Amino acid sequence: MEPSKTAILLSHCPDAKGIIHTVTDFVLRNGGNITNLDQHVDHSERHFYMRMEWDLDGFSIPVDKIDEYFATLVANKLNMSWDIHFMDRRPRVAVFVSRYGHCLYDILSRFESQEWAIDIPMIISNHDKFQDLAERFNIPFHHIPITRKTKVEQEKAQLELLRRKHIDLIVLARYMQILSPEFTAQYADRIINIHHSTLPAFAGANPYGAAFARGVKFIGATSHYVTEDLDAGPIIAQDVIPISHRDSIHDMKRKGRDIEKVVLAKAVFAHINHKVLSYKNKTVVFE
Amino acid sequence: MEPSKTAILLSHCPDAKGIIHTVTDFVLRNGGNITNLDQHVDHSERHFYMRMEWDLDGFSIPVDKIDEYFATLVANKLNMSWDIHFMDRRPRVAVFVSRYGHCLYDILSRFESQEWAIDIPMIISNHDKFQDLAERFNIPFHHIPITRKTKVEQEKAQLELLRRKHIDLIVLARYMQILSPEFTAQYADRIINIHHSTLPAFAGANPYGAAFARGVKFIGATSHYVTEDLDAGPIIAQDVIPISHRDSIHDMKRKGRDIEKVVLAKAVFAHINHKVLSYKNKTVVFE
Amino acid sequence: MEPSKTAILLSHCPDAKGIIHTVTDFVLRNGGNITNLDQHVDHSERHFYMRMEWDLDGFSIPVDKIDEYFATLVANKLNMSWDIHFMDRRPRVAVFVSRYGHCLYDILSRFESQEWAIDIPMIISNHDKFQDLAERFNIPFHHIPITRKTKVEQEKAQLELLRRKHIDLIVLARYMQILSPEFTAQYADRIINIHHSTLPAFAGANPYGAAFARGVKFIGATSHYVTEDLDAGPIIAQDVIPISHRDSIHDMKRKGRDIEKVVLAKAVFAHINHKVLSYKNKTVVFE
Amino acid sequence: MEPSKTAILLSHCPDAKGIIHTVTDFVLRNGGNITNLDQHVDHSERHFYMRMEWDLDGFSIPVDKIDEYFATLVANKLNMSWDIHFMDRRPRVAVFVSRYGHCLYDILSRFESQEWAIDIPMIISNHDKFQDLAERFNIPFHHIPITRKTKVEQEKAQLELLRRKHIDLIVLARYMQILSPEFTAQYADRIINIHHSTLPAFAGANPYGAAFARGVKFIGATSHYVTEDLDAGPIIAQDVIPISHRDSIHDMKRKGRDIEKVVLAKAVFAHINHKVLSYKNKTVVFE
Repeated sequence: MEPSKTAILLSHCPDAKGIIHTVTDFVLRNGGNITNLDQHVDHSERHFYMRMEWDLDGFSIPVDKIDEYFATLVANKLNMSWDIHFMDRRPRVAVFVSRYGHCLYDILSRFESQEWAIDIPMIISNHDKFQDLAERFNIPFHHIPITRKTKVEQEKAQLELLRRKHIDLIVLARYMQILSPEFTAQYADRIINIHHSTLPAFAGANPYGAAFARGVKFIGATSHYVTEDLDAGPIIAQDVIPISHRDSIHDMKRKGRDIEKVVLAKAVFAHINHKVLSYKNKTVVFE
Repeated sequence: MEPSKTAILLSHCPDAKGIIHTVTDFVLRNGGNITNLDQHVDHSERHFYMRMEWDLDGFSIPVDKIDEYFATLVANKLNMSWDIHFMDRRPRVAVFVSRYGHCLYDILSRFESQEWAIDIPMIISNHDKFQDLAERFNIPFHHIPITRKTKVEQEKAQLELLRRKHIDLIVLARYMQILSPEFTAQYADRIINIHHSTLPAFAGANPYGAAFARGVKFIGATSHYVTEDLDAGPIIAQDVIPISHRDSIHDMKRKGRDIEKVVLAKAVFAHINHKVLSYKNKTVVFE
Repeated sequence: MEPSKTAILLSHCPDAKGIIHTVTDFVLRNGGNITNLDQHVDHSERHFYMRMEWDLDGFSIPVDKIDEYFATLVANKLNMSWDIHFMDRRPRVAVFVSRYGHCLYDILSRFESQEWAIDIPMIISNHDKFQDLAERFNIPFHHIPITRKTKVEQEKAQLELLRRKHIDLIVLARYMQILSPEFTAQYADRIINIHHSTLPAFAGANPYGAAFARGVKFIGATSHYVTEDLDAGPIIAQDVIPISHRDSIHDMKRKGRDIEKVVLAKAVFAHINHKVLSYKNKTVVFE
Repeated sequence: MEPSKTAILLSHCPDAKGIIHTVTDFVLRNGGNITNLDQHVDHSERHFYMRMEWDLDGFSIPVDKIDEYFATLVANKLNMSWDIHFMDRRPRVAVFVSRYGHCLYDILSRFESQEWAIDIPMIISNHDKFQDLAERFNIPFHHIPITRKTKVEQEKAQLELLRRKHIDLIVLARYMQILSPEFTAQYADRIINIHHSTLPAFAGANPYGAAFARGVKFIGATSHYVTEDLDAGPIIAQDVIPISHRDSIHDMKRKGRDIEKVVLAKAVFAHINHKVLSYKNKTVVFE
């Protein structure tokens, strides 16, 4: 398969008659071959969501003109929010981590075994614990410690690094610092966090401790886009596992790590394959 | 909502360029409003599946002509297998049961509470155990005992009943008799069975005993269309639950009943809402 | 199996050396045969929990003296909270219901098919919707409507009925009235409720609406003992199912009903088989 | 916590009166403190299983005499199969791998982050693909290619390595060679394999292909002890995930990797913490 020849449209707009027909018409009339189409209507919001993949082989509109033509011929008429991605462009991902490594190890494994078609130009951490690991995987590591006092300037340093390396996506792999609203605003729907509870239950610090105290029979993990409201951004993926009275907080943490890393990976995979649409603090995740 | 005004197309055909465009064109050009569309391409088989709901309010083709027009204008050109259903037509369901009642009770509950928009013109059983229950739910009960000797003629009696009452769907709610190929051929993709294992594991008799003997850590249930090959028809729904060494065969049976009834209900619900397509012994189940 | 010959101890006490040894000694020394023993130590609380079943055949202490002897010889020395149950005593269960019937139908099915060895001397409802259903299952139905004004006296009427019929357990099968602290205090750890969310998420009214608004990817149900704090009592059982953006609130409610009834049944089954210990607002549920 | 002071008994024997009492008596009478006790009776086999942890601080029998005393005072009388483990002894684990690395990466991550208290004295592979990875994690790598012709002598070389390094447990992390009966006999209940299906369904080669062809709605993974019968040894852990018609074989493989690594890890964790008893081709896995 030549991934370079595929375009992906991610779009949403107010629901109306004939949207699918209009969009598929744009591709077919210009010689494209639709290989995948998925759509969703949220009837309660009267809002329409669509993802479409098509083969650019034989497509009569030049690649660098597709955006312009799509805007003119389709999107502007439908009041549509949209992006067109090309599968030959590898997303550039920055990984942020603190002192828990299970998500980082998991990401490095998927990256090195090419399960994910991404580049990782940097790992950023407020600790130096994983410097050696990063080096063993040949990824530049930036130790940027953060205190209450230095937070503003250190975030600036982070943002400068991200900009310079053209980062598309930031993955918070158990990064234990809260990003400022100034930071998150610059990467809206492009920062993915993993929280170790089934949000909205047990937001904030120490969710396993709170789950143990409440005596729940399930624990879980939630991956979401980061907004300025802590643990309250659009949820991309969740998973849960049963627990019982036999599980101590220590057991919960151990078992929880496995769903944390898998749920985070699921969200990242969906994002880098352009399968996630975010609207009104919720997501549509196409399969 | 007036359910009488909705049409549902269930269709599949060899994959080709522009199928969605052609089908949506049929609806839009004639004043219909598509309220739901889902499609799937099995790339390994190059086969296309589609389900489409549209509002008949304002649709310019008369209801009794839709089949003819669709065949002429769309289906014949695309070599399409298809059915068009109308939501004001309640499916007529016959329930077959033997001596385990949990699925029957569950079906009656969903029926009486109108969770399912169906009619149940008959319950057929080779035992008389649930005669009283059927009467309490006001459903005609036919006790048709079956022995090796009487099987042929008793199946004829069953078929005669089904025909006379225009039955659309047969639900085998733990019916412990094997239907003959002559019987199943007349109701292809219209007989739904529940088997108490995650097929293909533990097909045939006593699956919980076999699961216990093998020491598995999960048990499950499978709902499938019945074909002439025992427990080998297209799977519609499955579910599983974890078990441990602490579970005796008795515990497995008890826990299994809950997934049996829920899985069977899930399959029936999908079928009566025209969400299941069967092709080459597999199903596409739209959501 | 003759269930009449089995005793079950449910007990908990501060952890100490040799508790199991002391308790098993009581049975063995008096000719009993332990058929089941399960224990748990919560190391964070240094608290010990134990459930033991033993065969009374050949047990030298008369049944009506077992409590006294156990208190003297074992429990008092260990500062133990405990109950001894006899399996020939069928728990007497009152079911409370309002206008959603799926849990009630499910309970009646389990009761009538003898999955549960209980008696149901009454169904109490603030509506008359299920009067006919109760009659068809031969269970006395009490229609006790409740308004803000009549609540105090109507609860008195309910309590009087419960007392008169020696009710052991109250099951709130989607009963939509909040019980007063005066009521719940009289049946501590003997009222089981089903809440249609994975508590502590989405406590209170309309949990599916709240789940839909938050965009979660799992919904669930929680069964718990009722305390005076709404939806905050000790959790006995939970279960969850995945959902997606395709699920409307209506879909959530429909899918949720199936886990509501199964989770409630799981909690009731554990309770009536004397497998639940409650301590500090959490439960130990033996398997 | 000083792990060096804990002993763990894993034992099973024909069921009889008073086993727990006898075993706990052995510990208590000699000044030990039981910190954990779990037992199980398989009533269908009339067989008793028990796991007990006790604190050796203050225990009057010297560590190197415990085995002898336990045999004399307890085990021989009860016809018991048993092992006593000491938690200060780190299990020595050899990892076998071929060309799929996801389980290997996962194991290395758990090892390096000290989630598992083990030593990994070697990785053995029939390919050289992961030589570099092993070196980066500082683990000796042995490339032992295997052909039909060289199999006998190469297995000898493997066994020699395992013996020389006192290996306690062999983990087959997607090792694609079948071990000979001569090999498996030497490490009975000490070789753990991961098979990428919910055994007994889809044993043998290409389980995802077979699952796709059958159209199942769940896929899974099974971790089991290796016996001379392929994929038929005692099951230690299983897990499953739902799939749909939308999942290609490629998707199944991708999704399957995540449960393969987690299920294998679960089985290894249980084994190295001495929580697994195997008897008559089934396991008891204490929690």
